[in-house]
Amino acid sequence: MSRIFNFSAGPATLPLPVLEQVQAELLDWQGSGMGVMEMSHRDKDFTSIAQACERDLREVVGIPSHYKVLFMQGGATAQFAVVPQNLLRGKASADFVVTGDWGKKAQKEAARLGGARVVASSEAQKFTTIPDRASWSLDPDAAYVHITSNETIHGVEFPDAPEVGSVPLVSDMSSSFASRPFDVSRYGLIYAGAQKNIGPAGLTLVIVREDLIGQVLPGTFAIHDYKVMADNDSMLNTPPTFPWYVCGLVFQWMKREGGLAAIGERNARKAALLYDYLDAQDFYNNPVARPYRSQMNVPFTLAAPELDAEFLKGSKAAGLIGLKGHRLLGGMRASIYNAMPEAGVAALVEFMKEFVRTKG
Amino acid sequence: MSRIFNFSAGPATLPLPVLEQVQAELLDWQGSGMGVMEMSHRDKDFTSIAQACERDLREVVGIPSHYKVLFMQGGATAQFAVVPQNLLRGKASADFVVTGDWGKKAQKEAARLGGARVVASSEAQKFTTIPDRASWSLDPDAAYVHITSNETIHGVEFPDAPEVGSVPLVSDMSSSFASRPFDVSRYGLIYAGAQKNIGPAGLTLVIVREDLIGQVLPGTFAIHDYKVMADNDSMLNTPPTFPWYVCGLVFQWMKREGGLAAIGERNARKAALLYDYLDAQDFYNNPVARPYRSQMNVPFTLAAPELDAEFLKGSKAAGLIGLKGHRLLGGMRASIYNAMPEAGVAALVEFMKEFVRTKG
Repeated sequence: MSRIFNFSAGPATLPLPVLEQVQAELLDWQGSGMGVMEMSHRDKDFTSIAQACERDLREVVGIPSHYKVLFMQGGATAQFAVVPQNLLRGKASADFVVTGDWGKKAQKEAARLGGARVVASSEAQKFTTIPDRASWSLDPDAAYVHITSNETIHGVEFPDAPEVGSVPLVSDMSSSFASRPFDVSRYGLIYAGAQKNIGPAGLTLVIVREDLIGQVLPGTFAIHDYKVMADNDSMLNTPPTFPWYVCGLVFQWMKREGGLAAIGERNARKAALLYDYLDAQDFYNNPVARPYRSQMNVPFTLAAPELDAEFLKGSKAAGLIGLKGHRLLGGMRASIYNAMPEAGVAALVEFMKEFVRTKG
Repeated sequence: MSRIFNFSAGPATLPLPVLEQVQAELLDWQGSGMGVMEMSHRDKDFTSIAQACERDLREVVGIPSHYKVLFMQGGATAQFAVVPQNLLRGKASADFVVTGDWGKKAQKEAARLGGARVVASSEAQKFTTIPDRASWSLDPDAAYVHITSNETIHGVEFPDAPEVGSVPLVSDMSSSFASRPFDVSRYGLIYAGAQKNIGPAGLTLVIVREDLIGQVLPGTFAIHDYKVMADNDSMLNTPPTFPWYVCGLVFQWMKREGGLAAIGERNARKAALLYDYLDAQDFYNNPVARPYRSQMNVPFTLAAPELDAEFLKGSKAAGLIGLKGHRLLGGMRASIYNAMPEAGVAALVEFMKEFVRTKG
């Protein structure tokens, strides 16, 4: 077996020790005589797995006790509608800060269910920056303020939670969740598809302050009602048990790695290695304003788009895959989530240098 | 490693050769250098897996080309609302034949979105039978007729698709899908959570006649719009890739086992072994009318409920788990899906006999 370095934006590379444990336990979880995939979600073996997952998540991220943790389905795309269904709470509208394509989609979906004001947008700058906080026209009566902490396509990331006063801050953290220490108490609600930083596709994490739930719009499905899900330990119906288990193993791995502080430092080193190289030459270009560059997704273009195919072919031959940029931007994108080792980023930079030497 | 016989109602036991293949490929799928969990859903490796899954499913079940196959999330519970959102098509109401708790839930959820007439119910008989077809008061203008092909809790199964004229027949087949040959063309729509007969939890299969889609109710999420999902090959957003892959391996296994004909014969032998024993003695009792007994889920009670705990303890010690009945019915339930070998049912019957000898 020869593992490659996988720079896919999600589903994405997972920590090798996690995969090895999944493999070892696949037919027989801890002497139970069955694999986790085969366990009834009501079985106490699975209940113990589910509870340990939440416990480890709460510990590694530091989630205060007045926040509920929900394990849902449908991805961030479902949450684009589920969040307003739960959080409008009789208010006329919510405020959206749009810094990329995902934030734009979230706003559009919310607009079908109620008011969804764009209070700031960097679309005119082709989503290469984050509008200055002072320019945001926030409504003090808004149901919530929505941001996308990290825009996976454009590679734009909030350095920290913006100050929005007493209005609850809601963030789509799909591609940056648990990539470094952050203060959950600054947010009213955080949601994240698992398939980038924490596990396989098919599980969506929701962390929500408990005073915000319980007032859904009429017509909301029971499985989309945060209160109902919280009251049922996310098991109103059969949950995606196997992804839940794998996420639990990832949280255990994060603890062994030293928690968010150590992981965040490693991620900062990885990102610096790549951005420092991008800034030190002229062949490759990343267009994002420096303070808002993503630590997780690094889009870059080559001096000549005609070389893209050759770059992709060469990088694949060098054991570096998933580098093709999103169709909206073209070029390349390196996603360097928690599970991407420093050696992977170093190998990418070496390949990039070599490519310039021979083709640039 | 010692594998047990797992009679859970779902998630449920999976075929051993499937689990072994998943295990072998977990870190490196066919020399790709990564596991399937880590593959981008846009990657051509995953696309090939997804397409092969649908191809094998179409072949093994015999799905006509004018039916779409969709891979969704949210389970049958989500479909309880998604089906009327898609299939009401301007009609005033749909007809429901209620033969158990799941059908009751489906009808209740549909009633929130439009008319949902109960045209027949066996609730007065405690869901131990299926109302005679002649007694159904069908509406010729109904949007569709909904049945639950197999009621997982009550162990009641339709022997075949009922004749309902030109109104589309919709079936929740979660717990009996692909358990024996059946004629897809008798149905307008079939849905099934994967976690019983075909794979892990987190994937929901929808098979729908293409002329029925494209007229959703206002407010329907894009990921719940069958037409949008069909047009996007079920990849409007990130699908549950790993469950999709495992389902594909199950369909390959079904082909190797001889297809639905051979599997259906084996399932009939398994069910006969258990029901014949149940009918041959007085200690255990299954209350379901014989023509409608489920081949998949066999609920039974003991002569004295005080013995339940001892039965569960003893069966577990004998390597037979997941036999506790649903809380609505108490007693026991043996789920004997495709992946349960005949030896498992034989071992259960032996244990039941031995239990009577010592405790009865």
